[in-house]
Amino acid sequence: MTKGVIERCRLLAEFSEEPGFTTRTFLSQPMHHVHEHVRSWMEQAGMTVAIDHVGNIRGVYPADRSNAPRLFIGSHLDTVPRAGAFDGILGVVLGIALVESLERRRLPFAIEVIGFSEEEGVRYGVPFIGSRALIGDIDEELLPRIGPAITAFGLDASRIGEARARDNAFGYLEFHIEQGPVLESLGLPLGVVDAISGQSRLDVVFEGQANHAGTTPMNLRRDALAGAAEWISTVEREARATPGAVATVGRIAALPGAGNVIPGSVTTSLDVRHTEDAVRHALVARLLRCAGQISSARCLRVSSEQRLDQPAVAMDSGLVQTLERAVQSTGFPVHRMPSGAGHDAMIVARRMPAAMLFVRSPGGISHHPDETVLAEDVEAALEVGMRFIEALEQRHG
Amino acid sequence: MTKGVIERCRLLAEFSEEPGFTTRTFLSQPMHHVHEHVRSWMEQAGMTVAIDHVGNIRGVYPADRSNAPRLFIGSHLDTVPRAGAFDGILGVVLGIALVESLERRRLPFAIEVIGFSEEEGVRYGVPFIGSRALIGDIDEELLPRIGPAITAFGLDASRIGEARARDNAFGYLEFHIEQGPVLESLGLPLGVVDAISGQSRLDVVFEGQANHAGTTPMNLRRDALAGAAEWISTVEREARATPGAVATVGRIAALPGAGNVIPGSVTTSLDVRHTEDAVRHALVARLLRCAGQISSARCLRVSSEQRLDQPAVAMDSGLVQTLERAVQSTGFPVHRMPSGAGHDAMIVARRMPAAMLFVRSPGGISHHPDETVLAEDVEAALEVGMRFIEALEQRHG
Repeated sequence: MTKGVIERCRLLAEFSEEPGFTTRTFLSQPMHHVHEHVRSWMEQAGMTVAIDHVGNIRGVYPADRSNAPRLFIGSHLDTVPRAGAFDGILGVVLGIALVESLERRRLPFAIEVIGFSEEEGVRYGVPFIGSRALIGDIDEELLPRIGPAITAFGLDASRIGEARARDNAFGYLEFHIEQGPVLESLGLPLGVVDAISGQSRLDVVFEGQANHAGTTPMNLRRDALAGAAEWISTVEREARATPGAVATVGRIAALPGAGNVIPGSVTTSLDVRHTEDAVRHALVARLLRCAGQISSARCLRVSSEQRLDQPAVAMDSGLVQTLERAVQSTGFPVHRMPSGAGHDAMIVARRMPAAMLFVRSPGGISHHPDETVLAEDVEAALEVGMRFIEALEQRHG
Repeated sequence: MTKGVIERCRLLAEFSEEPGFTTRTFLSQPMHHVHEHVRSWMEQAGMTVAIDHVGNIRGVYPADRSNAPRLFIGSHLDTVPRAGAFDGILGVVLGIALVESLERRRLPFAIEVIGFSEEEGVRYGVPFIGSRALIGDIDEELLPRIGPAITAFGLDASRIGEARARDNAFGYLEFHIEQGPVLESLGLPLGVVDAISGQSRLDVVFEGQANHAGTTPMNLRRDALAGAAEWISTVEREARATPGAVATVGRIAALPGAGNVIPGSVTTSLDVRHTEDAVRHALVARLLRCAGQISSARCLRVSSEQRLDQPAVAMDSGLVQTLERAVQSTGFPVHRMPSGAGHDAMIVARRMPAAMLFVRSPGGISHHPDETVLAEDVEAALEVGMRFIEALEQRHG
């Protein structure tokens, strides 16, 4: 079974817009082949399959009664350019494998496995199109942009509203590779996500005076890069001093950018994440204050522009506890952790209780052909999933 | 007279390869017009004028005796792209003005005013072509490259060796704008250059691990930019702690360069200058040691490559003292200073005693159309030049 999960992920990775790599954007042609395989696995597991009008593939495994509540299990089937085989895909294939393990045994709730058509935001620069349709939150402005792709795929954009989940949805579970190094560093196969971090993104610009590197003594300089460097060290120090926070300067450009000219202007990016918005906002404010103090002391000017302020999303505390007990019952240590990256669960959580289980990423590698998973970790995830379903069965029985 | 010097510089700035700007590279067509004017001013001052075969214009004001020694006074007539009117040019025009002030009075030595054809290195990426020819040091490899330009200008590259100064040369004096902020910050019109700084240029590369800015906790990062930033602060601190040193990181590139990715690789430039080569070498070694220590502590790798190691050049102590006494006798405070930038005097000093007088640069601005000089500073430079010549006259009389 486990061997089947990894093999299925690797099979789907073959369907790509770019030969030799896995590149599969929103409603691109290779998605038809992915759907064929996913549909057949779903039907073999006893599910009724449909593709909604935003391109999500949805297999419903019926309950033992009518008017039963419904559990969603899913993730996305699109990829970044030159992706690995597991980001997103693993969550869909694991959902199908869970239903297969039931061996047609009926539960007091239905299970709907959903493979979202779009999460990465590659084709239109807008992420989460699939999960947004599930919660009925597709922007009016977005429709005309994605309409032609929907029509070309053989769907009907005017019926996108039908993708919305009905009110019988009582929960959403997403399996996903961690895409980071934490579980590996702790020697753990699985992590229970308690929240998806909020994000601030800003541009911060330091301006001084470009000057000749030979003729301008140290004490008469207004070196924008020396100021930016001091601030980058402060960003790192303050983030380390804030439990749970990450802060990153990933982009830097110094002008005029010649080895023998003192930089007159430096533009940097700032990315700050935390599961508590108040902590994140306070950290950003502190970092901007530090930038101001550093600049004053150096006769520089500093300015900043906020590009993103995305709130944190908590996972449902009841489902998180259920997932933790499921991990515990398999004998693995329970490790709660935030997700520093965005996931479909973050969107779905607006409409129904949501939970996420992270699977260890060897080497922390993701968004790269070397992305992989360990067979024993996939086995563990499947086992935890079964215990999770059994716990819900008892509750709804 | 002074008004004439500034007006002559501004007139020569009109002759340009690019309308609306002053751009005049080695042996470009506008140099013909510059030579016409310079020749006529030299001849009016009583000089015999020739253009040597590297394109230097040379006016000789004869001595009161035969077989007399010769004092050179000069600077360069080429410019950087979109230059100001004074870099180089001022030194040639001041030389002519000094000879004019003699009003045909003969001295016990000849004066040769020289306008070098090339100093900036713009046209062939090789600086100091004019002054190299004066000391007989044109590389064999350079000749075929510059030959066609020399021919096109109406000169004969095979006769470039004739440009070499004869053994009767006893000194070289160069007036030049400071191109830096020191004299202005001290409220002084003039500075006596005692040495031209040596330069080290290196590339320094920090390598860590690119990773997701959201999923990689602070303690599991190998952030190449955080390491480079710590080092840039060290460069500034160590240079400040080394009297007379300047050190600059002017170029920085972080890869992959996305706001949400921890930089895996950062390339920086390092420029270090000092008038004592031992001090400069020790500072560079210390900065590279610091880069190594910072990288070890952060699990980064660092590597460096030296691009330039140019020794410092001392001005002649006798001529420096003569120039200082000349400044003192005009009533201005004597300020000795290094030149952080290279000048023709640095080349000429290999063959004859050389001295330089810096003229204050308002705003420290150079290599820019806003480059200027103050009329009273030019007046002061001219007066100091006269006192300098009078002192030499007494010595040779």
